[in-house]
Amino acid sequence: MSELLGGKQRLPELMPLMKETSETAVWICSHWELQGCTAADCNAVLKALQPVFQEQGMTETVHNWEDHGYLATYIQKNGSFANLRIYPHGLVLVDLQSYNDQTKGREETDRLLDKVEERMKELFHGNIKRVKRLPAILRGGAIDRYWPTADGRLVEYDIDEVVYDEDSPFQNIKILHSKQFGNILILSGDVNLAESDLAYTQAIMGSGKENYAGKEVLILGGGDGGILYEIVKLKPKMVTMVEIDQMVIDGCKKYMRKTCGDVLDNLKGECYQVLIEDCIPVLKRYAKEGRMFDYVINDLTAVPISTSPEEDSTWEFLRLILDLSMKVLKQDGKYFTQGNCINLTDALTLYEEQLSRLYCPVEFSKEIVCVPSYMELWVFYTIWKK
Amino acid sequence: MSELLGGKQRLPELMPLMKETSETAVWICSHWELQGCTAADCNAVLKALQPVFQEQGMTETVHNWEDHGYLATYIQKNGSFANLRIYPHGLVLVDLQSYNDQTKGREETDRLLDKVEERMKELFHGNIKRVKRLPAILRGGAIDRYWPTADGRLVEYDIDEVVYDEDSPFQNIKILHSKQFGNILILSGDVNLAESDLAYTQAIMGSGKENYAGKEVLILGGGDGGILYEIVKLKPKMVTMVEIDQMVIDGCKKYMRKTCGDVLDNLKGECYQVLIEDCIPVLKRYAKEGRMFDYVINDLTAVPISTSPEEDSTWEFLRLILDLSMKVLKQDGKYFTQGNCINLTDALTLYEEQLSRLYCPVEFSKEIVCVPSYMELWVFYTIWKK
Repeated sequence: MSELLGGKQRLPELMPLMKETSETAVWICSHWELQGCTAADCNAVLKALQPVFQEQGMTETVHNWEDHGYLATYIQKNGSFANLRIYPHGLVLVDLQSYNDQTKGREETDRLLDKVEERMKELFHGNIKRVKRLPAILRGGAIDRYWPTADGRLVEYDIDEVVYDEDSPFQNIKILHSKQFGNILILSGDVNLAESDLAYTQAIMGSGKENYAGKEVLILGGGDGGILYEIVKLKPKMVTMVEIDQMVIDGCKKYMRKTCGDVLDNLKGECYQVLIEDCIPVLKRYAKEGRMFDYVINDLTAVPISTSPEEDSTWEFLRLILDLSMKVLKQDGKYFTQGNCINLTDALTLYEEQLSRLYCPVEFSKEIVCVPSYMELWVFYTIWKK
Repeated sequence: MSELLGGKQRLPELMPLMKETSETAVWICSHWELQGCTAADCNAVLKALQPVFQEQGMTETVHNWEDHGYLATYIQKNGSFANLRIYPHGLVLVDLQSYNDQTKGREETDRLLDKVEERMKELFHGNIKRVKRLPAILRGGAIDRYWPTADGRLVEYDIDEVVYDEDSPFQNIKILHSKQFGNILILSGDVNLAESDLAYTQAIMGSGKENYAGKEVLILGGGDGGILYEIVKLKPKMVTMVEIDQMVIDGCKKYMRKTCGDVLDNLKGECYQVLIEDCIPVLKRYAKEGRMFDYVINDLTAVPISTSPEEDSTWEFLRLILDLSMKVLKQDGKYFTQGNCINLTDALTLYEEQLSRLYCPVEFSKEIVCVPSYMELWVFYTIWKK
């Protein structure tokens, strides 16, 4: 039971109340795992917990599966309800949903769950193998805190404000404020970059091992301005950034200034220019003109938003970009890109297979980087011509 | 709707199946937010979705609150069930629970939710403001993936194996394997350190700015061996580590070797010793003997497990440790410790207040560090005598 004491709380503290935003459905899920449970025990759980809900004035509906245990549903006059699901092998789930502002909803459900917990302890004290109450899940409010990781895990962000939310012709653009990460750019549901994520920008620039002074650099995508801002500080000869979506630039120059500084205030500076274009035709034009770069940095979003007809599949799109990029990359130049989260090993392998299918032979290295707002480790690639 | 396309999936990939472990209750939560919803619409949702569930052979129970909308419960013969909760202002929640091995449970619920989604789109196409389906929540299995952050957020880890799980006289000790972070030490439910977390060890050693060569170092706690292992490499004169819990050392020396190397294989080495003791009496002894250290590193767990009678509260315990540590710290020595997650500002402020109440005047600085397995930014303190 000692695991109930913890939580990663290193110093004593009253849990801070997240900024209230609007009314929300609050779903609190808890469960108990019992040892050596029999059919009689299942019934005992039901009988023991019934009064706890009934004391709250909740009305009960019970379904008995016989061989699959019980589901009891308890309904409160104010619109709240609870599910009590008892599985025959001793898993007891109590889930409560209330609709209220966050604080009141949590208090109501927490209070009821405390009573359930007390009863369960009285009844099964020695036989409770594990108890778990998950943090409240908030649904339907103005702020969506749940942005799953690339490998499909549920993670809750400490979002307290929707700063920007617009649909461009290409994608949905959100900028949400996180208490710890600052503003986060989310493109079509995909956490792109937070103001805390200099680690991302540094990794996709070669982790401090490159000398950009006097160099020609091409950035594909990069609408948050982070790479452009960092490279311009290093006195390059010329940086060309090709971003398809003006609205990403508009949002970021206003709300991601810790990332982009003032670099997006003008689309042209002393040593940089930003082209608002699809990068495929630009790459083709440069290849035709024989224009060459010391560095090509691919910071495009995953789901391609180019409208070029060539690509039949995402992989072909990625290969097209790679092939065109190699055509404009000097023989001793370097191509940097982000890959994927470290857990998506199949995708990473497939990506590396594409690298062996380019028009010219290339070699690559990879690096694993912790990007604070991603909540998962991310793989970055460096690619160069053999 | 574009946000449905995304997920932080940068490269195309079939979602990998997490290693199956045991039968689990799979809870899939989804919701739709409708614009301009009327009472008639609520009823229309109910009527439209009823056949979807009934086609699955599910039996229905409907509760109509009149002023709070509907709850329909659908029960499947195999023990699965669904809640359809319709709130009058247009929030529609469909939550399904099945009990099955993970893959089958997910497929079943996903299939049903796809059908619900189709019907909702047919019915309310232009008026759906937001759709959200959360990743499946798995409960009651052998592996618990949910270890909330210090600021109380729900996060799911990619745990695929329980490596060690024992109760010591002091705490519950778990070592769980994460696909991306390696083995993670969890003490009484508190994520302490993963094999990926060299950033933690570096931060609590002063972020590479200290010269440990020839120095006297005292580590309080630190049973995972990470600090000891890293400092011993730097040729100190002598490191003394005081860890109360032999079982933490036993678990870590076996399963956290990427963190501790071979340093815990012996409790004594050329330039270090590990004392299995409560650090309070040790500190008192050292203070009495006039033993002084160049560095004191406090790596104790948050919830104190000392049995000393002096501390009435956690804050007093923390102050006692600080006072005793200052007594054994050389005038030009440094005291390092981890603080808390950056969001728990009240706890951080309270901690800093303690620093002004020590027997001797001190100054401090703090640093914010991203520890990969924490999924939140963490504050580290350096404290020195004025």
